[in-house]
Amino acid sequence: MVGGLVMDKGTFDFSSFIAERVPPATAATTTGWDPRGRPKYDFGTGFPDPDSFPAEGLHEALGQALKERGREMVLYPDPKGFLEFREFIVDKLHRERGIVVEPDQVLVTGGSGVALAIFTQLLSNPGDTLITEEFTYPGTLSVMRNLKANIVGVSTDEEGMRPDVLDETIRNLKSKGIHPKFVYTIPSFQNPTGTDMSVQRRHDILTVAQNHGVPIFEDDAYEDLRFEGDRTPSIHSYDDTKMTLYCGTFSKIIAPGMRIAYLVVPPELISQTNFLNWGRPTSHFAALATYYYLRDHMDEHVAEVNDILLAKRDTMIGALGEFMDPKVVYNRPSGGMYLWAQLPEGISVASVAGKARERGVAYLPGPNFSPTGEGENYLRLCFGYADHEGIRDGIALLSQIFTEEGLLA
Amino acid sequence: MVGGLVMDKGTFDFSSFIAERVPPATAATTTGWDPRGRPKYDFGTGFPDPDSFPAEGLHEALGQALKERGREMVLYPDPKGFLEFREFIVDKLHRERGIVVEPDQVLVTGGSGVALAIFTQLLSNPGDTLITEEFTYPGTLSVMRNLKANIVGVSTDEEGMRPDVLDETIRNLKSKGIHPKFVYTIPSFQNPTGTDMSVQRRHDILTVAQNHGVPIFEDDAYEDLRFEGDRTPSIHSYDDTKMTLYCGTFSKIIAPGMRIAYLVVPPELISQTNFLNWGRPTSHFAALATYYYLRDHMDEHVAEVNDILLAKRDTMIGALGEFMDPKVVYNRPSGGMYLWAQLPEGISVASVAGKARERGVAYLPGPNFSPTGEGENYLRLCFGYADHEGIRDGIALLSQIFTEEGLLA
Repeated sequence: MVGGLVMDKGTFDFSSFIAERVPPATAATTTGWDPRGRPKYDFGTGFPDPDSFPAEGLHEALGQALKERGREMVLYPDPKGFLEFREFIVDKLHRERGIVVEPDQVLVTGGSGVALAIFTQLLSNPGDTLITEEFTYPGTLSVMRNLKANIVGVSTDEEGMRPDVLDETIRNLKSKGIHPKFVYTIPSFQNPTGTDMSVQRRHDILTVAQNHGVPIFEDDAYEDLRFEGDRTPSIHSYDDTKMTLYCGTFSKIIAPGMRIAYLVVPPELISQTNFLNWGRPTSHFAALATYYYLRDHMDEHVAEVNDILLAKRDTMIGALGEFMDPKVVYNRPSGGMYLWAQLPEGISVASVAGKARERGVAYLPGPNFSPTGEGENYLRLCFGYADHEGIRDGIALLSQIFTEEGLLA
Repeated sequence: MVGGLVMDKGTFDFSSFIAERVPPATAATTTGWDPRGRPKYDFGTGFPDPDSFPAEGLHEALGQALKERGREMVLYPDPKGFLEFREFIVDKLHRERGIVVEPDQVLVTGGSGVALAIFTQLLSNPGDTLITEEFTYPGTLSVMRNLKANIVGVSTDEEGMRPDVLDETIRNLKSKGIHPKFVYTIPSFQNPTGTDMSVQRRHDILTVAQNHGVPIFEDDAYEDLRFEGDRTPSIHSYDDTKMTLYCGTFSKIIAPGMRIAYLVVPPELISQTNFLNWGRPTSHFAALATYYYLRDHMDEHVAEVNDILLAKRDTMIGALGEFMDPKVVYNRPSGGMYLWAQLPEGISVASVAGKARERGVAYLPGPNFSPTGEGENYLRLCFGYADHEGIRDGIALLSQIFTEEGLLA
């Protein structure tokens, strides 16, 4: 019998074994990890400042946590995240976001991606319609597309999603017999546009959603990065109908490499949300370090991160003013880590993104953020990662590239 | 408009919004985290020894990693796990398991649960038939059931899954027009039975699977815990047809709380396997600590873990001999962390598991491991977690409970 194995029986063909839920092996199913390595001036991805990563603080906090609770590490971690951490999150949400919930409504997840996937899986069948801002986080678009959703964008103004357009959009859908499953919005420092909803706007968006019976999915990833002005309470805090799903993350104030985010669900959805997180509890090691560190240092650390971001925003705006053709216009966000820049209509920034990357500058073009692939003349510039010199040099090079590629005079 | 929000509009009803993929909120969708807390004598779950958790070593290793690579933490981690870690795993698999693969075939996952879910999602549509040992890991059964698979168990002997029964099972299925999607097996220290396949048995199982064109899914979670005898190469190492999917874990030698496991896929399935892990990269923080620690300390640490487990196995066998009715029979595994005990047929150990837990002793009854809910007279006892005194006292108490509950004279 062993003899039979020595022969080369040929390589097994799995093609007829792949489940229907799995898309074909195409570019769309790659990991997103760029084999070309990282560009010299990386304004593409939403990375925080590498010097603000609290390596020593986290290491020290972890040492304390392991002394006190190391024996817990051999247990399977609470799939929801350990109770003290969820209580800490509940307290943070109450103080900073006006949200009043029980620890049981909180689920710690291995990053925002998991939270986005859970909520989208929870509420959408293939073909269902989901509403977003007209430009939105590409990770969310990927989740929605993977789940075969129909995605409808709503146009924005300087305060974010427009309630009148949202109302009209839902009315139009309903007239065709379509009831959207939820409205996904990033109210604070929207990604990529950087808009920040006022209190009134938050009320207005919620009211439209309530009037139409369409739940809201509030992605609050950037509120912690408010470096100018006072915090605005979350949409969730105004929602007396408990139709708002909410997620937050520690990726922006600690690091994406930790993979620690959280979601907040209405009580009736707890069991099913837990189910969808099944088998994916977050690393207790990473969660312990995060909790012990933030418990003692959150406010000072967030203040430090925001000082850094504010200075970098100004450096990038300064560099754009100094080096870039004035036909390129952009916002001046009071938080977050992105500028949203616009070239004159008809100019395709998207078409030179590959070439710019080869020459050492990465940015994300508008179509990456659009459900319909629009926004050729837009680009998102992240000012979180590069240092001040890198921001200036990179913007200068980008301006040069735009000129040399014939986008600008 | 704000006024409208002050009124209680009533709580939103999500029930008609839940996607079809989500099961109803029932006991089956709970998290598995027991709200009663942990019993005094916990032989139920497969927890390692808490004193063997290398808290200081990991902390020190992490310190080094953060010094050298802390700035990486602000980047989104490579979704597959960072390259050096995958190279380390490739090398470990080659030296210890006879497996020859490229780092690109390795995907680091947030625990074995993710690996099990990925492979099962990759290959099974609802209603597809999957084959397991007649008693197998409950986590695998949960994944398969959640994905609405038809699960067929194959009986075992002292070497694990019987090739003649596997052959007959597949023939029977094929005669009904059913082609199973894979054979899931735990060749080394099978969970729960503790059986260990010989080289010949591994060959025989592979040959049956090859002859029928049914892929193998090899779960190698326990091979690192071989405390007696020499390692047997994996089934994967004998497979010249590349039809074997493989997963391993660091949960048993480091800690489940880390959430670090890995899977190995045939080259043609890499893209789709990555897709199914989408949005769930493992914590880079936990992965860095694990890699830096194991790189320098793996062999000595594994030797220490196995010394501990061997001594605990003997303590549990001694306690069973001393306190338990001789009608209870059990194996003497050369690795892993479980005894598989059998009471005379007709006696339901399962029926008193709840009562035993209330009295402070947890074990898992046979039906938890069976695709069809059989095995009322079996129980799995984990000797990994409790200390020697706890093992003795717990087994004595369990014997007393069995007698008082009328299971044994």
